[in-house]
Amino acid sequence: MRVRHKPWAGDFIQSHPEIIEPNPESHKGKWNELFGNDNPLHIEVGSGKGQFITGMALQNPNINYIGIELFDSVIVKAAEKVIEVGTPKNVRLLIVNGADLEKYFAKNDVDRLYLNFSDPWPKSRHAKRRLTHENFLKLYEAVLIDNGEVHFKTDNRGLFEFSLVSMSHYGMKLNYVSLDLHAEMPEDNVMTEYEEKFSSKGQPIYRLESQFQTMKD
Amino acid sequence: MRVRHKPWAGDFIQSHPEIIEPNPESHKGKWNELFGNDNPLHIEVGSGKGQFITGMALQNPNINYIGIELFDSVIVKAAEKVIEVGTPKNVRLLIVNGADLEKYFAKNDVDRLYLNFSDPWPKSRHAKRRLTHENFLKLYEAVLIDNGEVHFKTDNRGLFEFSLVSMSHYGMKLNYVSLDLHAEMPEDNVMTEYEEKFSSKGQPIYRLESQFQTMKD
Repeated sequence: MRVRHKPWAGDFIQSHPEIIEPNPESHKGKWNELFGNDNPLHIEVGSGKGQFITGMALQNPNINYIGIELFDSVIVKAAEKVIEVGTPKNVRLLIVNGADLEKYFAKNDVDRLYLNFSDPWPKSRHAKRRLTHENFLKLYEAVLIDNGEVHFKTDNRGLFEFSLVSMSHYGMKLNYVSLDLHAEMPEDNVMTEYEEKFSSKGQPIYRLESQFQTMKD
Repeated sequence: MRVRHKPWAGDFIQSHPEIIEPNPESHKGKWNELFGNDNPLHIEVGSGKGQFITGMALQNPNINYIGIELFDSVIVKAAEKVIEVGTPKNVRLLIVNGADLEKYFAKNDVDRLYLNFSDPWPKSRHAKRRLTHENFLKLYEAVLIDNGEVHFKTDNRGLFEFSLVSMSHYGMKLNYVSLDLHAEMPEDNVMTEYEEKFSSKGQPIYRLESQFQTMKD
């Protein structure tokens, strides 16, 4: 995502610690204390402008949501969205790198992980940067519950093909695949900004649900 | 596939035992003797009018091919195609039901199995008839070598989605997925009759390669 420099972003972020958590390391292994309940925690890696995570938080008040995003100026947009819908108590944002998940989450902290319209990194030499590369899957497994799920949407054919193979080779099970999500349009689908843009052009949206497999003795 | 009644089919079939094998049971466990060599054996379940199996046989003279088809009148079309290209020695046809594979093939007889544009059986109550239903996967595993592969092409989105999930749940690994085969068009792709028809309409062709996983001790 292209990002304009926003010098005022720092101030905005510091003045909204109730939305953008300033000390994510301190909650590792005990995010339930921050949310004040033991509801499941779902995270979105690469939450962009926050339309998905905000929509999900409103739709599912008994689930806690954390959106993770690297760029200050993007997270500000997401925070504005959270404010716009009345600052629901079950959503937080973190300005961290997805590659550092283990710094902020312990095993079993996370019940489900969402990836939406992640950067496709189409060149082969950049395959390791794709958020469904096995190195990332390993990270996700390290913070998810046993048999935790990854839900993934994209309009990028190459990334989706790569992800099916990568997840399968990692040993994950595919529980659901749609190769044209909007042809079915499940009632509870929460669209991202990108999704609205791409689907209005008539391009198919791909979606999958996959699950880590706990080794049996 | 819609099939017209062809009363002359029986005569044609009986007069071409070098193409349409009249006693497939007798070769179970020793198909190499029929072909007179120890080359790998690849079979296509539902070979239709034979364009794929014939094209593959010509492209790969060191692989033996068997096309399986249920209907007399369709297998005759396939046999005519085999004759048309000079009756290569590495291709045979069987008039048998795919559900009876184990009557004709023993474990390790088959090195690879192809499914092309299989009947999608779109209604849920017919799911068991889909050639990628777990009951069929079990059959394929019973005749394939360890870690044997299934290669599958279709233009039917619902069947492809079902197959990805079904194969994954069976424990097969996905080694390759294309969601628009003709956008890449591998040089060695042999098209079926259906494939030519559908791709000329601009519809995407889906393809996957999946592999059974031998249990490790």
